[in-house]
Amino acid sequence: MSRFFSDKFSSLTPYVPGEQPKDMRYIKLNTNESPFPPSSRAQEKAAEAAKRLMLYSDPECTELTRVAAQRLGVEPEELLFTNGSDEALNFAFMAFCDAAHPAIFPDITYGFYPVFAELNNIPYRQIPLQEDFTIRLDDYFAVNGTIFIANPNAPTGLALNLDAIERILQNNPDNVVVIDEAYVDFGGETAIPLIHKYNNLLVVQTFSKSRSMAGARLGFAAGCKELIQDLKTIQYATNPYNVNSMTMAAGIGALEDDAYFRQNCLAVMENREWTRQALRKLDFTILDSVSNFLFAKHSTVSGGELYRKLKEKGVLVRHFAKPRLSDYIRITVGSKEQMEVFLEKVKEILEENP
Amino acid sequence: MSRFFSDKFSSLTPYVPGEQPKDMRYIKLNTNESPFPPSSRAQEKAAEAAKRLMLYSDPECTELTRVAAQRLGVEPEELLFTNGSDEALNFAFMAFCDAAHPAIFPDITYGFYPVFAELNNIPYRQIPLQEDFTIRLDDYFAVNGTIFIANPNAPTGLALNLDAIERILQNNPDNVVVIDEAYVDFGGETAIPLIHKYNNLLVVQTFSKSRSMAGARLGFAAGCKELIQDLKTIQYATNPYNVNSMTMAAGIGALEDDAYFRQNCLAVMENREWTRQALRKLDFTILDSVSNFLFAKHSTVSGGELYRKLKEKGVLVRHFAKPRLSDYIRITVGSKEQMEVFLEKVKEILEENP
Repeated sequence: MSRFFSDKFSSLTPYVPGEQPKDMRYIKLNTNESPFPPSSRAQEKAAEAAKRLMLYSDPECTELTRVAAQRLGVEPEELLFTNGSDEALNFAFMAFCDAAHPAIFPDITYGFYPVFAELNNIPYRQIPLQEDFTIRLDDYFAVNGTIFIANPNAPTGLALNLDAIERILQNNPDNVVVIDEAYVDFGGETAIPLIHKYNNLLVVQTFSKSRSMAGARLGFAAGCKELIQDLKTIQYATNPYNVNSMTMAAGIGALEDDAYFRQNCLAVMENREWTRQALRKLDFTILDSVSNFLFAKHSTVSGGELYRKLKEKGVLVRHFAKPRLSDYIRITVGSKEQMEVFLEKVKEILEENP
Repeated sequence: MSRFFSDKFSSLTPYVPGEQPKDMRYIKLNTNESPFPPSSRAQEKAAEAAKRLMLYSDPECTELTRVAAQRLGVEPEELLFTNGSDEALNFAFMAFCDAAHPAIFPDITYGFYPVFAELNNIPYRQIPLQEDFTIRLDDYFAVNGTIFIANPNAPTGLALNLDAIERILQNNPDNVVVIDEAYVDFGGETAIPLIHKYNNLLVVQTFSKSRSMAGARLGFAAGCKELIQDLKTIQYATNPYNVNSMTMAAGIGALEDDAYFRQNCLAVMENREWTRQALRKLDFTILDSVSNFLFAKHSTVSGGELYRKLKEKGVLVRHFAKPRLSDYIRITVGSKEQMEVFLEKVKEILEENP
């Protein structure tokens, strides 16, 4: 820290992304990336856009917004595209939280929420998940704050259904409810259609996982026009050209190639169920994930030990050294071949630990 | 504005980017873009990176930072890459300004500075430029605040030399001085070598103009390791994966193709001088711009009228309807062919206004 760093950030604890070691080639099952390349249509459109980079990107994301709105069944004015969904979330913390409107979210969820709150000097309250890692709905009724719910949740993979989301919305008419759907395409239900029914609902999605575009940085928020306009005010005061031209073009390509998107989501879901069955036979307890990862613990080998030994064997998974989570590992669902190697290594470890 | 929008932003006035009309094809001389496409090496590397978008981009920008550091004569730890230089500037406002450290900048300069200050609830003081639009150095000595100077300045194109920058640095040992060098490659002197001499200096540059990458969104900050570490703390609490993989790859390609970069800068400088001479003959007063734009006023036709009539004729320039600026138009220096059309249209307008 320099002597010039503002006091207001002196205790800021930044987010810690999943490790990206460069010492050897790993099977990466630690950051919930897709095992599949982006759509060839996305690749081609990005390459085409690279020829015209001398011009600023369209700050309105006009064409991408038009294509996405059509496919999502919303109006273009009900969408805002951002530099990854993290930016959409940060904008939502900025726009809809302050001293009078604290941020409210589960104690176990996406680790960036408390960071966004601290960054923006917003008070926040973490509501404990129940013993089985599910959300107790009543905890989120009339909370006097802005609610952030990852649905499906991370790192558990558990999801609320739309009835539950609606009950939260109905019981918070004066609070914004942000539903972060980063993992929704692997078996969850999107709340996007509900934006026409509830003007306090903001839904955030990303192209990182199901559309294989983590490296492109593309996310969006969907909500009623007024909420989106608020986010646009923040965008135009922060970084009007927040989404670059290549990513915009790739996003259009990815949306147009719907068959490839569906096929990949299905493959991940099939591999997830296959891996789940195999892990059960090896004496793992696994939460009912509907995302592209599994949260699992073994009956005798600790999460920390599994993580370390898998890493030694060339397979990266994610381990959270935190209360209630440290028994578990979070395993991104990759290709069938990756999951086979993962299971083989798990078996080796279990045999070494009789 | 929704009823949920935080009071703290209720009076926030966002930045207004140069217009990007879609009603017809214009000769765009209004947003200081390059008339030349990005380096073919940048294009190729971006297209290659598009194939691997399923993986997150490297939050450390390791390879790009290594290549840039080598070419700039600094250490990798003295650089931070950002999603356009606007993000680097916003991070600097966040990290180095607060109620006790107001932001200080000229009254006529990049229009985003007051927006960043308002966004971050930072008090700011605007110091009037002198009658001839130059900076009076003494105004910036021991100011008790964080100084932001665009060098060359916009929309004037006027630059301070390094001696002047050093005097400001020496007279502000306890203040961070941010030198925003968006336009430095067209005849200015970069202050980057001074980061090894002054630990209160932060230099910000962009790939938007001289490297023809406005649409890719790539900028960086250079400073001593401690200042850069402060910005990284902000980055990791805001958007760790702020730069996407394609832009990173294109940035490396652009840096490697140094000959193309130099050739384009030279062409813009030649076209600038050619345009300057031609405008002088038409009774324009033109500031001594060392950037990729000219700030010019005619002896009889107003800036607003020139702007409007040029737009009718298919040429976009930028006009600022503000005190001291409204007599002028800001003309981006494009290709020789673009400048010829621009001059032809100017002549037509002057003939219509005898």
